[in-house]
Amino acid sequence: MIGKLLYPELKELIEQRKFAELRQSLITFPPADIAEILTDLTAEEKAVLLRMLPYQLAADVFEYLGLENQTQLLHAMGREEVAKIINEMSPDDRTALLEELPNNVVTGLLHLLSPTELKLARQLLGYPEHSVGRLMTPDFIDTRDDWTVQQTLDHIRAEGHNKETLNVVYVLDPQGTLIADVRIGEFLLRPLDKKVKEFRGQNPVTLKVTESDEEAAERFKKYDRAVLPVIDSAGHIVGIVTVDDVVDVLERKATEDIQKVGGSEALDQPYLTIRLPRMIRKRAPWLVVLFLSEMLTATAMGFFEKEIARAVVLALFVPLIISSGGNSGSQATTLIIRAMAIGEIALRDWWRVMRREISSGLTLGLILGAIGFLRIALWSAFSQIYGPHWALIGFTVFLSLIGVVMWGTLSGSMLPFLLRRLGLDPAAASAPFVATLVDVTGLVIYFTVAMFVLRGTLL
Amino acid sequence: MIGKLLYPELKELIEQRKFAELRQSLITFPPADIAEILTDLTAEEKAVLLRMLPYQLAADVFEYLGLENQTQLLHAMGREEVAKIINEMSPDDRTALLEELPNNVVTGLLHLLSPTELKLARQLLGYPEHSVGRLMTPDFIDTRDDWTVQQTLDHIRAEGHNKETLNVVYVLDPQGTLIADVRIGEFLLRPLDKKVKEFRGQNPVTLKVTESDEEAAERFKKYDRAVLPVIDSAGHIVGIVTVDDVVDVLERKATEDIQKVGGSEALDQPYLTIRLPRMIRKRAPWLVVLFLSEMLTATAMGFFEKEIARAVVLALFVPLIISSGGNSGSQATTLIIRAMAIGEIALRDWWRVMRREISSGLTLGLILGAIGFLRIALWSAFSQIYGPHWALIGFTVFLSLIGVVMWGTLSGSMLPFLLRRLGLDPAAASAPFVATLVDVTGLVIYFTVAMFVLRGTLL
Repeated sequence: MIGKLLYPELKELIEQRKFAELRQSLITFPPADIAEILTDLTAEEKAVLLRMLPYQLAADVFEYLGLENQTQLLHAMGREEVAKIINEMSPDDRTALLEELPNNVVTGLLHLLSPTELKLARQLLGYPEHSVGRLMTPDFIDTRDDWTVQQTLDHIRAEGHNKETLNVVYVLDPQGTLIADVRIGEFLLRPLDKKVKEFRGQNPVTLKVTESDEEAAERFKKYDRAVLPVIDSAGHIVGIVTVDDVVDVLERKATEDIQKVGGSEALDQPYLTIRLPRMIRKRAPWLVVLFLSEMLTATAMGFFEKEIARAVVLALFVPLIISSGGNSGSQATTLIIRAMAIGEIALRDWWRVMRREISSGLTLGLILGAIGFLRIALWSAFSQIYGPHWALIGFTVFLSLIGVVMWGTLSGSMLPFLLRRLGLDPAAASAPFVATLVDVTGLVIYFTVAMFVLRGTLL
Repeated sequence: MIGKLLYPELKELIEQRKFAELRQSLITFPPADIAEILTDLTAEEKAVLLRMLPYQLAADVFEYLGLENQTQLLHAMGREEVAKIINEMSPDDRTALLEELPNNVVTGLLHLLSPTELKLARQLLGYPEHSVGRLMTPDFIDTRDDWTVQQTLDHIRAEGHNKETLNVVYVLDPQGTLIADVRIGEFLLRPLDKKVKEFRGQNPVTLKVTESDEEAAERFKKYDRAVLPVIDSAGHIVGIVTVDDVVDVLERKATEDIQKVGGSEALDQPYLTIRLPRMIRKRAPWLVVLFLSEMLTATAMGFFEKEIARAVVLALFVPLIISSGGNSGSQATTLIIRAMAIGEIALRDWWRVMRREISSGLTLGLILGAIGFLRIALWSAFSQIYGPHWALIGFTVFLSLIGVVMWGTLSGSMLPFLLRRLGLDPAAASAPFVATLVDVTGLVIYFTVAMFVLRGTLL
């Protein structure tokens, strides 16, 4: 957005250290853009620039810098500056920063907070990781049933500064129990002497402070909200969650799912910044498990060693056959995992899915089988590589492909259901996992078909 | 949220056709919950219930019903009811409905719209699919530079009814050019006689009406906004986009990516409702391409037919070796594709990624190679299956695994870069695609290592 046009000019101002002019241009930009401009600078330059900005803006910009930059800056800035900035940060972003920092740094930072902010920070950090409590900010605007529109607007004018959002006003009873949420627009459109209870709704959509952030994200999606209130077990409102944090949660969830589908544990950290030994620890276990399972292929092939020795031509098609099963299985499992993740498919749909996959698998198997037969027929027309029994070999490949592809789609589509039924994560039915599973059975299918079709000729 | 507790009661009211009481309970719920309650009913019952709700609420509920239910209802409801509901729908949701319906139905529906709504609908449908124009709603609140806070609030009171959101007010010049966006809170906190130009910012973050919805989603993520203004090529504001629609776009994008990673074209429709022939058309092409590529394995194996005939034991490890390459390649490509999709990795990072993958690949290869060697040593201690040269065979497997896994991670991680460099979608480097690519080269690596290590003994 920033207009990349302006960027070189700003860079020049930085190089010439014309900080006063730079400040003038910078303060007109949204914090996210200023943060982007800062990322290319050294930690010291960043600190100098942040120092020049109004504190509220500096805190906003700081929130948009990545964790790496934030940590750098905490070291480069003076104690007092750090204190001002982290006191100004919005509580939810501050929690996100603190939960990523080493313990001793956190302790140091907590010392810099004002008593009020300290209490807040400790409270938010007290909620479990990935819970709604970590995501929320305790700044919101409340009103009472017997207040008028005018009273509420006056209240906002008195208390609304520094609240993360004024878009929704929460109606509380005298005990602090949430009874309704009213969009700010309602207050702007109603007569000033109307009482809140006359137009507020009921049954507000809420989040529980101990719920997982993924459950919270589902709620936001279902109700299309930009902000939702958070209540404790007693029904008292303790904070609000805004949708921008939820977008991050949804992205993290999608990232985890994609990484699992690819056959790795979720990295939980950006690819480029995760330390190499840690990344290998995330990747190796699955590869080892797959490798150990895949060893069964060597065992399975061992059973058919005599057949292979008698008709080496059979070995040539082994990779083709088993990989076709693996590919169709990967496809099926991925479609099902994703449909489950976004709530399109529930456990009870297994039978509908199975029927669809039987038809799909049969069709796909027929297509691949036909191509396989054609290829063998074609090659045999021009060479002797498949010998006089090429038609029988072609027929073996044709039948095996149908069986293997059907088996691949079926097991690929049913495995996520099975895992879910057992209370496990369906995404563990990763593409490589299904491929491995299908490889072993694919071999058995292929050689069994071969023994049946080729008995008396090649075998 | 709805309190599943209430659900049986509601169901009873429906069964006893106590519609008056039902209406009383229903109107206290959020539209999304009412829609959920309706889904289990027949189209006729749905129509009866919708008819009883206030029109604005009925339209809101209708927006939350899935496309399938919406189409059903359009048939079940009377012309007049349909007219009222689709006239009341918010323009962006109506666009979403219209773009999914067959042309003749759309024409019918357009006839039912009031002249104003018709103009709006035609205009929004005129923007390309997946563009910001399709996502936006033209209802927003504007103000002028020389208006006071009081004038703006009066303007909102007069014009604010039925606007999708009043959270942000847009400052326009007399030509309708957008010069700033101001959060509603600013107007609630400032003195009433302050002029807008005294406190408005500048450089508002905007969306272009012709941009893709995915670009819009990136903008929302970067700036953490709940609503963004849409401008045309002249800089005039033409509408706004709210974040709830963007959440859907991000989900759709993640779904497409996951489906592609699994080796299928993006379905673009829910798994359970896409028609079977259409789903097969989405799935078959990739499987066929993979199958045709995988045929190269038969060719590659053909080259080594003599070696296989001489040492059948070599064939036993073929699936194990090539699948290890495939699995490590799937893992690497998935990690990189996702990191690219969420902007963690840019094209210029290819060298950093390559260095990381060389180290990862080597480590992972050593781990798998060691396990492979151990397994062969172990089996040989108890059986004669691998003959007297088991150690050489084990060494062949060990070296091949290192080579194959390194090659898998390297090609898996670099392929997304190559595709992106060529202007193609990196997600096309799906797990099955990489696995297939690595299978062929894996065979060559394996048999080359074998010929080298086993020359003079088995070969």
